[in-house]
Order: sequence, then C-alpha cells, then structure tokens
Amino acid sequence: MNFKVPRGTQDILPGQSEKWQKVEQTIRDLCHVYRYKELRTPIFESTELFQRSVGETTDVVQKEMYTFEDRGGRSLTLRPEGTASAVRSYVEHKMFGQADQPVKLYYTGPMFRYERQQAGRYRQFVQFGVEAIGSADPAIDAEVIALAMDVYASVGLKDLKLVINSLGDKETRDAHRTALINHFEPSIGEFCSDCQKRLKKNPLRILDCKVDREHPLMTSAPALTDYLTEDSAAYFAQVKSYLDVLGLSYEVDPNLVRGLDYYNHTAFEIMSTSSGFGAITTLCGGGRYNGLVEEVGGPDMPGIGFALSIERLLLAVEAESVVLNIEDGLDLYVVAIGEEAKLKAVELVSSFRAKGISADMDYLDRKMKAQMKAADRANAKFVIVLGETELEEQAVNVKTMETGDQAKVEFGQLVQYVLDKKA
Amino acid sequence: MNFKVPRGTQDILPGQSEKWQKVEQTIRDLCHVYRYKELRTPIFESTELFQRSVGETTDVVQKEMYTFEDRGGRSLTLRPEGTASAVRSYVEHKMFGQADQPVKLYYTGPMFRYERQQAGRYRQFVQFGVEAIGSADPAIDAEVIALAMDVYASVGLKDLKLVINSLGDKETRDAHRTALINHFEPSIGEFCSDCQKRLKKNPLRILDCKVDREHPLMTSAPALTDYLTEDSAAYFAQVKSYLDVLGLSYEVDPNLVRGLDYYNHTAFEIMSTSSGFGAITTLCGGGRYNGLVEEVGGPDMPGIGFALSIERLLLAVEAESVVLNIEDGLDLYVVAIGEEAKLKAVELVSSFRAKGISADMDYLDRKMKAQMKAADRANAKFVIVLGETELEEQAVNVKTMETGDQAKVEFGQLVQYVLDKKA
Repeated sequence: MNFKVPRGTQDILPGQSEKWQKVEQTIRDLCHVYRYKELRTPIFESTELFQRSVGETTDVVQKEMYTFEDRGGRSLTLRPEGTASAVRSYVEHKMFGQADQPVKLYYTGPMFRYERQQAGRYRQFVQFGVEAIGSADPAIDAEVIALAMDVYASVGLKDLKLVINSLGDKETRDAHRTALINHFEPSIGEFCSDCQKRLKKNPLRILDCKVDREHPLMTSAPALTDYLTEDSAAYFAQVKSYLDVLGLSYEVDPNLVRGLDYYNHTAFEIMSTSSGFGAITTLCGGGRYNGLVEEVGGPDMPGIGFALSIERLLLAVEAESVVLNIEDGLDLYVVAIGEEAKLKAVELVSSFRAKGISADMDYLDRKMKAQMKAADRANAKFVIVLGETELEEQAVNVKTMETGDQAKVEFGQLVQYVLDKKA
Repeated sequence: MNFKVPRGTQDILPGQSEKWQKVEQTIRDLCHVYRYKELRTPIFESTELFQRSVGETTDVVQKEMYTFEDRGGRSLTLRPEGTASAVRSYVEHKMFGQADQPVKLYYTGPMFRYERQQAGRYRQFVQFGVEAIGSADPAIDAEVIALAMDVYASVGLKDLKLVINSLGDKETRDAHRTALINHFEPSIGEFCSDCQKRLKKNPLRILDCKVDREHPLMTSAPALTDYLTEDSAAYFAQVKSYLDVLGLSYEVDPNLVRGLDYYNHTAFEIMSTSSGFGAITTLCGGGRYNGLVEEVGGPDMPGIGFALSIERLLLAVEAESVVLNIEDGLDLYVVAIGEEAKLKAVELVSSFRAKGISADMDYLDRKMKAQMKAADRANAKFVIVLGETELEEQAVNVKTMETGDQAKVEFGQLVQYVLDKKA
C-alpha cells in the first residue's frame, strides 16, 4: 500500500521548514512592532459565512471551496481566505465594544481552494493577513500597506512593486456598474458563460475573468476611477499623501479590482518584479471593506486588511536569491564507546540540553568511526568521545571542530566550558 | 445574519494567543536543543491512510473522523492525529535512505475529531508531537519521554506524573490476546455492543472502553506485562534504566494501553496531578510503533513518538497558576494634534518601527485627552505629544511613563534616544 500526499498539497520537510519558521518569526516580530495581535480561528466555518462575505458570484465560492457536511449534518467549508473568519470572530466576540480601537488583528495559517493544478499553486496554502477594523482613517490604510511592504523588506526582498487603486464608495460603484453593463452588453455573446451571468449580477467580476482576459473590450472598459465621488477621491488622495510621507512609491492602476466582493475604497497589490519569475507575479493583495462587518451581523464598522501567501513569498526569496539567515546548527555531539559510556552519554547530553545547548548522540550502536561521521554530518561545533578511560578519569577531551582545539575538561565542568566557548 | 464559530471549535483571541505563541516558541527551542526538525503535512490525507494506520476498530476511525469527498471524488479526512501523516511523509520522501539516522521529526498543528462536546474537549485541537524513526535503541525511547517531560517543565509545570508500560512484541500480544478472550468471553454479554465486537477483532481495545470502564472484569483482566517475552522484558528494563539515568521518576502501570492500534513495546502517558483539575488528567501519550512504517508502505523501520495537546497544556498552566513570561507591551505612543502633526506622527511612528520599537498612534481623530487615555490603556513605556509648537521647534518632549521623566529631544535624535532608554 502506497500513500501519497493529497493532490495539490505538499509536505514541508526539514531543510525547508526552517525557512517557514524564519519567515513566520519575522512576521510575528513585525506585527508586534506595528501592534497587531494574533487571532486564531478554526480551519472550517459554516459554509454560509463565505457565501455571504466572499460573495456568491465569485470563483472562490462557486468553484473552489472544500465544502462538506459534518456528522451532525452542518454544512462546513474549509476556509478559502482569512477575512471572513476574522470578521465573524470580531462580531461574535463583540470586539467593536473594546476600549482599544481600532482593533488590529493578524492571522497566519492554511487556507484551501480547489484550483486547477499549476506551478506554485496549491490547494492548501498558507496565508498571513492583517485586519484593522474600526477606523476609516486614510492613515491606517497607509499603515496596513506599509506593514505588507515591510514583511517583504524584512526578509530581504527588493524587487517589489506596489499598485494601488480606489474602488470608491457605493455611489461610485453603482455608477460604474451601469457604465460596465452599457459597455459589455452589446457584445456579451463573445464572452464566456460565466461572464454572461456576471453581466447583470456583478459586472465588475467580468474584469477579473481568467477566460476572457484578452478580449479587446477588457482594456477599453470604463475605469472605476472615472466615477469616484468627491468624498472617495478626497479619501484616495489622503491615502496617497500618507504613502508619500512613508516614502513608499506606488503606481495607480485603475484596472486593479480584487477577486472578492467585499472591497471598496482602497485596493492594493504588491508584485514581484524579479526576473527570477517568468512574469510579474502578485504576492499580496488587500483593501478596504467598509460594510463587511455589517454584512456578517455586526454594527457598521469600517475595515481594511490584506493577505499574502507564504509560499509565494518564499518563491520570491528564491527568485531574488535572498539568503535567509537561519541558525539551526548542532552545538555538540557525544561519541560513546561501550555500554557504560552510553549511559554516561545519555546523562551528559541531557545536562547540555538543560542549559540550551543543542546536543545529540548515536542511537544505532554504531562503531566509533561511524559516530564521528555522524557528528561531522550534523556539523557539530564541539565533539567529545567517551570511552573507558574517560569514565575512569571522570574527564573528557572537548574538541572545537572549527579550530581543531582540544581541552581536557572534568565532567562536572563540561556544561560551563561549552557555554563559555559558545559565547 | 449571525454567524458563530462551528460547534466544538474555538477562536483564540488576543490576550490568549500570546500564551500559545509562548508555548510554541518554548517547544521550538526545545526541539532544536534535542535536534528534532519540523515536518509540516497537509490538514487532510486520504481516508485510507488513517484506516490503515490508526486502525479500523478504533473509536477514532469508526466514529470521530471528518471524512468528505473533494470535487474530484477522492475520499479525504481531516487528520485526527499526527503520526500517520508523519509516517506517510517519511515513506513518501524516502527518509529511511537519508545518511542522518534516526530521523527525528516534530510537528505542531490542528487535529480534528468529532467527539461529544465536553469541557476542555474540542473537535479541532492543536497537537505537538515528535517521531523518532529508524532506531530500536531503548535510549531513544528515554529521549522521547524526556523531551515530553521537558516541554511541561519548560513552561513551568510541576505537578506531573509519568506512567509507563510495555506492550511487548507480536508474540507477547498474541499470547495476551488469547488470555483476554478467555477472560472476557464467558461474561461478554454484560458488556456494550462495541466491546462485544471488539472481543474477537481486537480484545485489547476492551480495556480502553469508556462505557464499561467500571466493570469488575476490567481490573482483573490479564496484564500484558505478564506475557512479555524475554526480549521485550529486557528492552523494557533498559528503557527504565535510561529513565533512571535521566533522573525521571515514573510509575509502571500494566493497564496502560493506548487508544490507537499501532503501538508496541514502550507506551507512556504524562498526567497532571494538579489539584486545580477535578481528576487526574492525561496531558500526553506516546509509544513505540515498530511495524507502522511497513504498514504504510515503507521498509521495516522501528519508530517511537508522542503527541500532546496544547489546549490541555494550557489548562494545566491555569490549574497550577503558572505565570507565563510574556513580553507584549507597547514601547511608544505618539499623540498628535492637528493635520500637520498627524502627517509627522505617521512618519515618526514608521521610523520607530523600522528600528524594532513597537509604536502606535491614534486612527480615530480623537482629541488630545482621549489619545492620552489610549496611550495609557496600551501601557506605553514612552509617550510623545506632537502639536504646532513641536513642529516649529522640530523637537518633542519624550515622557518615560514609569518614572514620569521628561526630556526634550530633536526629531532627528528621537529613535536613538528611545533605543538607549529602552536598553
């Protein structure tokens, strides 16, 4: 019987997992510095939550969700994104009533979308995201964008492009909607059946279509930015001025719409321009979602957030040949010859570990030479060899591998000796 | 529309999530010191993997799995435990062929069991576990047990009890099996229908039954330890002598069997004896599973591991009133009055954050007094107030909240000043 990892998913093995840990630690440190606090929500939610928040007409809800019934007959869905869950939690735990406002949250964890298989696309992927809920201040839009950019900068990425747009308010979108229908309706027969359905339900989604992306009417479609109300335009201008203050350069792309229904006002994406990627690749997307909290049953509270894929971040790290500074080496290996020596080795290894010194020994009854090889492969900084003589003398040679130095140290002084040498 | 967290699951909110982070960091540090490397496997696996490895007759497989079909018609199951996935990954990636043996892995992440709801039991819970595969050395059994104990000790728990047993080898279990059937068969009508099915299929599972636990035949049942072969007994004696060397006290409980089919030889549990719990509570369980690697399609490689629930660990932390040392305070809050000051505040906050100083400001256009209150609530170590005067002077008073000290500092010197004061 041969078992394989489920299609579209992957194992992250030792050698790779250290990179994930490093990136996640960078993210945690940054969130602390920006004062975003971690929220952990379950892997699945009621299916209706995503239908309601992500949007019935989106590809995500229509084609990509892992939906199933539990043994109690409830329809559950593995979360395809993080914002719906975060907002559900915000409402359920009445965070809008907290003294400390806005509420600044972050999350990181696996998300699930049943997508066609292609390079760099996984059906289970890990997203990091933040949500700032309770403020309609353009300065916090800038903060959220700055945090996203800072994640990439902090891991050492340089080839980045920030693209922003405003999707305006309801009035903006209604006017634009009408313009879009007028634009596409005469030729809608040339579009895919999904787009034909989208025309009346949600024509903005047409601009997002992967099938019809090359159709000439796509580029000539009326831009949302031309329909911005005065308020929306003023808001957008302020966001831009805060980005200027932060020294973040950006491009305004009037065609930037996001694939989920809940966005309005500020929308943004961060792309990698690294030549290591075949084409320009979106690493991160986010935007404002005033109205979503109400949609999910809460009061009328504005919000903004982003999500980014750790898989893609690591692809960008590779594309730019960034070396992540990972310290994962072994401090000390104990070679033991004979049964008595092995008992002592178990004791010594434990006493090193108790002081935070990473230590290991042989568990395969290997001969001395093979144990020395294992110490070598583990790239141990120090090696000690225990045999009968050492047990008699209650002392052992400590070899510092980098320099070849050796020193005889009594058992009772060993831990302190290595601690001093390490420092 | 009101959405709730799915039944049997929970949100981990700010205020709690910091504790999780702390525990997880402790675990990562310990695994580093013991030289176990992280493996991350998908949230779901093919259903058959769990049927095969966990065992067809176990409660987990029969009643508790979240099983569903994906859009391609594959039967998938949210992982109910971590060992099956780890061993599947070990075999799939041919880790048995690596130079560095044994392979020492750890994992941490959500697991899923559809259990009846009760206090402290969740349908989604987080397990940390390790697997050491490729060595049948009793010293590594001791290492694995020591690591589990060390997790609890490292977070500050003291009221712990280690219970061990040997389940012996195949010969042991066959002899014990026959003895169990002879013991229960005459009175099997007094047992639940599950136990009646277990009698011939897997009588060891009867000892594990939650329904019939009070039946008098349970305590008088033949103990596995009485059927240990000479080899098994010698192995168990060696494990105990290594535990002695490590200074770990333990109790041998001949009735300790584990709820999963794949265990043999060493089995162990760690309990909390804290009076803060109503009854003695199992925190961690593990054991040896020679044969499982072969069952999952790999070569005949021995293995041992454990898993523990982070939820229960945190319950024990509460029961013993352990204070986790969490540093999560805000360094600095910038109060800004007026639009010009706010632009400057955005810039200053960003420059602090760039140097790792956690900083925040107002995003609700609050008046000065309310901003000061927000700084207070955030427990900021330093507060600065920006107004027209400060902008003119290009300098600002930095107030150290603990002492009440104030010092006027030029904008250009601010970051360095706070860094120095913080150190």
